[in-house]
Amino acid sequence: MTTQHTPYAIGHAPSHTKHHEWRTAANSAPHLLPHLPKALSSNPNLKLLDIGCGPGTISASLAQHLLPSGHVLATDIADDVLERAKEHAISQGLSVPQNISFQKESVYELSFPDNEFDIVHAHQVLCHLDDPVAAVKEMLRVCKPGGLISLRESDMHMWCFWPELPSLLKFHELMVNVMLANGGQDKGGRKLVSWIMEAGVDRKDIEAGFGTWCYSEPGDRKAWGEAMIERLRTGQMRQRGIEVGLTTEEDIEEMVKGWREWMERGDATLGIVNGEVIVKKAAS
Amino acid sequence: MTTQHTPYAIGHAPSHTKHHEWRTAANSAPHLLPHLPKALSSNPNLKLLDIGCGPGTISASLAQHLLPSGHVLATDIADDVLERAKEHAISQGLSVPQNISFQKESVYELSFPDNEFDIVHAHQVLCHLDDPVAAVKEMLRVCKPGGLISLRESDMHMWCFWPELPSLLKFHELMVNVMLANGGQDKGGRKLVSWIMEAGVDRKDIEAGFGTWCYSEPGDRKAWGEAMIERLRTGQMRQRGIEVGLTTEEDIEEMVKGWREWMERGDATLGIVNGEVIVKKAAS
Repeated sequence: MTTQHTPYAIGHAPSHTKHHEWRTAANSAPHLLPHLPKALSSNPNLKLLDIGCGPGTISASLAQHLLPSGHVLATDIADDVLERAKEHAISQGLSVPQNISFQKESVYELSFPDNEFDIVHAHQVLCHLDDPVAAVKEMLRVCKPGGLISLRESDMHMWCFWPELPSLLKFHELMVNVMLANGGQDKGGRKLVSWIMEAGVDRKDIEAGFGTWCYSEPGDRKAWGEAMIERLRTGQMRQRGIEVGLTTEEDIEEMVKGWREWMERGDATLGIVNGEVIVKKAAS
Repeated sequence: MTTQHTPYAIGHAPSHTKHHEWRTAANSAPHLLPHLPKALSSNPNLKLLDIGCGPGTISASLAQHLLPSGHVLATDIADDVLERAKEHAISQGLSVPQNISFQKESVYELSFPDNEFDIVHAHQVLCHLDDPVAAVKEMLRVCKPGGLISLRESDMHMWCFWPELPSLLKFHELMVNVMLANGGQDKGGRKLVSWIMEAGVDRKDIEAGFGTWCYSEPGDRKAWGEAMIERLRTGQMRQRGIEVGLTTEEDIEEMVKGWREWMERGDATLGIVNGEVIVKKAAS
């Protein structure tokens, strides 16, 4: 049977990758970090596969944690972003390909043999897929028995704004609806455990929790607000949103104003929730 | 001017306190714990005021962190729960009143002089008040200049269930509506920074974030589900809910069934979000 899958629909426009660039292992893989010392002590040359690496800041940050002799193989479905990810890694003092290497891959059909990697990692990747369970199965296939799968997925409904400006609530609704129109997943955070069990994993081999991002301190608010405005102005959310009739130019300009007001309000806050899961692949 | 305030409306029925009893400083004051070593090194005899302590498990747990010579004064508006809190503290090996003491207090009119405590702590207390800003002002009053206020408040809309059983969504709606019918706050998590600034604090003296509770592992699911069922069967949520016409006996039984189903589903998850804030009281 052949299944059709939706490609990564958000795209790698500068508006989208700009926000992604502040991401590090510390702020985006906090559930994985505590497992690294033990994994490295059993295999100092461990291989970590990072799926859907985008601009590669988490990949590079993970590679720093695996020095001196662990290795990150960072992959993405898009060619253009891999070049940028490579430049970023070099700018961080990493050696390519000794510490980290880059390769175009589809998560649905990874080009690796079974049982190849000690750790398989994906951050906010399943949300862009129409068949997240198939992707988890493929990750399990290439992971060594006893190895780890590390997943972190946003739950798009778990955003809380203060103040609750109507234009920001509209932005949030548009964001969810564009994701759904693209065949993606809006509730990945809460569904991770369910997807992984559907892929054949026993509940006892899953460690599940939730993590948050908080934008409240003035610097964080500014960075986030500007990224959202740039996304509204030049990103896929505008293009797709207008294309499929979910929004208009006028709406978009209202949302931009909303983000500006939010950035300037001293008491403004935004909370966002991600599901975080570590799966141990059973020894066969 | 005299202001009328709503008393703690949930009550301390066993159904409500049972769930509260698994709470510790580690799972309910993770934002405060990193500040304790520094506070203790400047004052080994520091005094921590815990407001709205309920069954006192967080208070006792905090007192353990302040050993040997720090002190927790645990307060609540309700007499009956204080006796239970005292018993709990003794069962944990704490000395009363050397390590921890108990006293009936209203957060709106604390009986202490200004600048009395090194740390003032309240966990999910403001959500039960009709004037949270007045309470924050009173906490600031009794806190020493340079001291800390530690707050953690649920954001009741930030719950995510999987599976999304209709009866559980109904439960969630009832919970929010009973809180509102009682004059409480449903969005404390996101509004904390705003309330604190309204009480006169500068944004730079506020450290804000969000924390989560995750119920997914079978044991956690069972404990949480049973506490919710007991609350539905014997707690204020049923009594008030029926009294003000928000629910019926039949609805309640549906919700009980929903929780049972959720507890038994291996892939079930519940995420809950709390706003977490540390305020440094400016030196005057």
